Amino acid sequence: MNTDETTAGHLQELRRGTVVLACLVRLRTPDYGYALLESLNALGILVDANTLYPLLRRLEKQGLLTSEWNTDEARPRKFYRTSPTGVELADTLMTDWRRIDDALAGLTDGDES
Amino acid sequence: MNTDETTAGHLQELRRGTVVLACLVRLRTPDYGYALLESLNALGILVDANTLYPLLRRLEKQGLLTSEWNTDEARPRKFYRTSPTGVELADTLMTDWRRIDDALAGLTDGDES
Repeated sequence: MNTDETTAGHLQELRRGTVVLACLVRLRTPDYGYALLESLNALGILVDANTLYPLLRRLEKQGLLTSEWNTDEARPRKFYRTSPTGVELADTLMTDWRRIDDALAGLTDGDES
Repeated sequence: MNTDETTAGHLQELRRGTVVLACLVRLRTPDYGYALLESLNALGILVDANTLYPLLRRLEKQGLLTSEWNTDEARPRKFYRTSPTGVELADTLMTDWRRIDDALAGLTDGDES
């Protein structure tokens, strides 16, 4: 593995868990996959369709998202929404994220002193 | 998969990449495995020996850590230190972490407004 591949691998590992968290937070307001993808990328949560769409199906299977078809428009679209269980998990993950963020800040401060 | 297992899985995924980052930052000051483990756990980076020790060997193999034996004491200990490449990766990961943190903050603010 060269340095670029190593860096890419570690970046991917760092990002992976945060995409789940971002989806669960964002989908407290229901939306369909493509709109979610665009809004996450606009915010700086980098994810592509090949990763996001299977993830949405996995989160639905785990009971963290619910979905329904919106047939008001010519082309039906599947809307996802974070379930109560998903909201609970999002809170748990966000608390953990804050804890880790504090820990990393502690490490960096210690290093500078 | 029940809810506890789902939560545990997502928490693990969120934490995984951050352990690498924490090791690379912390080992800018050389230390041996057990001392690193204790200081990370004390800071709130939760990791166990069965995860950390193989990770240290993997990071060394990737050229992100260097190691040397300290034989001053009765029992020789392997000291790890972050390599220049590792310091560079730590900076890259920390920048990405900050970017994701801002994005998540943006999502949470948007939700509250």
